[in-house]
Amino acid sequence: MKPNQSIYLVGGHITDFIGKGRPDWDEDGDNPTLEEHLSEAINTAFDDTGVDPDAIDRGYIGNFAGECFANQGHMGALAQRANEALEGKPFQRVEGACASGGLACVNAVDALQTGSDIVMAAGAEVQTNVSAREGAGYLARAAHWETERELDDFTFPAMFARRAKHYKEKFDVTDEDIGYVVKKAYDNGNRNPKAHMRDIEVSLEEVSSVNDNNFCFLKNEELKPHLKVKDCSQVTDGAAAAIFATEEGLNKLGIDPNDCVEVASYGWRTSPLGDVDDYTVLGNTEQAAGEAYEDAGIKPSDVDVAEVHDCFAVTELLMYEALGWADPGKGAELARSGATAIDGDIAVNTGGGLISFGHPVGATGIKQVMEIYRQMKGKCGDYQVPDVPQVGLTANMGGDDRTTVSFVLKNLG
Amino acid sequence: MKPNQSIYLVGGHITDFIGKGRPDWDEDGDNPTLEEHLSEAINTAFDDTGVDPDAIDRGYIGNFAGECFANQGHMGALAQRANEALEGKPFQRVEGACASGGLACVNAVDALQTGSDIVMAAGAEVQTNVSAREGAGYLARAAHWETERELDDFTFPAMFARRAKHYKEKFDVTDEDIGYVVKKAYDNGNRNPKAHMRDIEVSLEEVSSVNDNNFCFLKNEELKPHLKVKDCSQVTDGAAAAIFATEEGLNKLGIDPNDCVEVASYGWRTSPLGDVDDYTVLGNTEQAAGEAYEDAGIKPSDVDVAEVHDCFAVTELLMYEALGWADPGKGAELARSGATAIDGDIAVNTGGGLISFGHPVGATGIKQVMEIYRQMKGKCGDYQVPDVPQVGLTANMGGDDRTTVSFVLKNLG
Repeated sequence: MKPNQSIYLVGGHITDFIGKGRPDWDEDGDNPTLEEHLSEAINTAFDDTGVDPDAIDRGYIGNFAGECFANQGHMGALAQRANEALEGKPFQRVEGACASGGLACVNAVDALQTGSDIVMAAGAEVQTNVSAREGAGYLARAAHWETERELDDFTFPAMFARRAKHYKEKFDVTDEDIGYVVKKAYDNGNRNPKAHMRDIEVSLEEVSSVNDNNFCFLKNEELKPHLKVKDCSQVTDGAAAAIFATEEGLNKLGIDPNDCVEVASYGWRTSPLGDVDDYTVLGNTEQAAGEAYEDAGIKPSDVDVAEVHDCFAVTELLMYEALGWADPGKGAELARSGATAIDGDIAVNTGGGLISFGHPVGATGIKQVMEIYRQMKGKCGDYQVPDVPQVGLTANMGGDDRTTVSFVLKNLG
Repeated sequence: MKPNQSIYLVGGHITDFIGKGRPDWDEDGDNPTLEEHLSEAINTAFDDTGVDPDAIDRGYIGNFAGECFANQGHMGALAQRANEALEGKPFQRVEGACASGGLACVNAVDALQTGSDIVMAAGAEVQTNVSAREGAGYLARAAHWETERELDDFTFPAMFARRAKHYKEKFDVTDEDIGYVVKKAYDNGNRNPKAHMRDIEVSLEEVSSVNDNNFCFLKNEELKPHLKVKDCSQVTDGAAAAIFATEEGLNKLGIDPNDCVEVASYGWRTSPLGDVDDYTVLGNTEQAAGEAYEDAGIKPSDVDVAEVHDCFAVTELLMYEALGWADPGKGAELARSGATAIDGDIAVNTGGGLISFGHPVGATGIKQVMEIYRQMKGKCGDYQVPDVPQVGLTANMGGDDRTTVSFVLKNLG
């Protein structure tokens, strides 16, 4: 989808992503609620951009499983509690599992094409209030419950262990190859004060091998060897909000387009639950991103900075291939080359990705576009890429490559 | 919202709405699953309209609490299992509690304004697989759980008992006044083979009084006298699907606009959870419908047929007032006059409404537009209104008047 007019990302806010392992997370459970995270993201987005809440025409809220984790649905009406100026404005929740945040951005961009001028996309998830095993059951609702839930108590980790197994076997990929992604994630997250996993120094050997801090936890014996704790994204609480506008919207707000990022295009593709042809390929991601590249008129090699959905370490390697940066089976070579490091040609997941920055499900897709914005506007502090990026890409994924959303963003100014 | 081009409702399908009290509902729980209901609605919509599934550009799925009732989220990808031709097309779930179906239609219409030509809105809910009390807890996730859940085990029934109490006290409305709506619902549902509550003859006296078949069930002593079993919408399983198209879409499909219904406008409004000013007024509904009337260029009295969200009997009376058909406190007079009966000037909920047709939450908003379509095209059999309606209105509501969606539909042909 190439928008029918210029659409701008004005800015927004990402909350601290918190959870077990972060010093300010309370083990006794006294942590911010879903509503508190969402409200902070929304109101700080107003503060940081200077956008008057009254100016918002509509809102789209990404959330996957609030009904389970927080006994709360009806997120459009929940979000409005953040700020009384929002009352009465059309708000709704959208859901596509872990791509819910990306879909919120898609809907915001669509709304701007149908008459709205200034639209908010926000997303949130709270997951640390239940055990990891219970939470894994909630997250398994993103798979086809009836046929896939029994794969393992940790259904999604098992589904991606299955991908790791096939990928390793087909292309002679090693645990150390996959470990490069893990080490990059932790190294990047260490520079990011918002990240869930901060101040955790890891060695390549430690993240590539089975040890007390990096054990295999699946029950499924066939898949168990193919996934270790540190290969996984985090169980995180947090929220993010982004404000999008048309040119007329920017005029109303008195904001210079050069202070914004342009939404050049998006790709969005959905495929049936449970129907994966080839575990070594992210086919839906490839097609959604392919559409985004084409509609933006760019090539994969034009991308300077990217946020990709590293729900598990192997996924990042598969993403490199799906997004056109590496040939099949060559994702690890790209990681080893340093090309996707903060100072690489295609800086990927500079803030630590889902593995270290964390993965509050409904927020992730919005965090992705906001991270591209922040890199383009030089707001990333210790993890700022050295050269101002001109072209950015996101790849947000729900379920096992079932709902995929990619944005191409271009720097202005 | 007046669409930026002509948008047509081509047709669709409503499944049988089933649940306790209907002969074909299995008390042992062997009933169609969420996926089965959704698939039936989708595929029969293709069959009934003759639309090739390949022609669909996008899909929006309304569902409120599949994560709780069916252990299933990610409904966009679930829906695609219905038909292999859908694979890869952009599908997402949208949620606004009991207005989720209305929002699916809103998104479909928006998508048609941004480049799509043929879009499906579908919705489903399965609720009969848990006890009524457990289900009431799931549905309470449409309220502000933290502050409203404790009102009663049956949170929403209590919230609308509160409305009934205030409405009765302010306007001297009686249980018999409210009973008129209940009797109309059951009488209409008796003519509708898809309705959950079929073949149940009720007298005005029976539905207006407390008796063995119509007892008060709330624990909250203050509110208990103000709601009886038959005042309530049903706990129902079911699904509905509707296909919308632009003029170019109709050309592709070879469908004559005169065989369709035109989407003249919609109104959509959201307000914060827990923030109701006046229990005797549906203020959000009034404003959403007001916007729809204005954008369609019609007056309330122009409406020939309507589907309104009678989640409880008193709500239908409040709807009459919010929708501009009766002055404050005069809704019951309108009901008593027969004006909203099948042969009345404004035929309301001709198939039995949520009280008798049933209320599979995520399907309801889509069922509403489909019922208007079916009345306009003479497809309602024993409950067909006598004169072909030219103007139709829907009023779908999520939570306690928190998310509201109204469509104005115009007959063609």
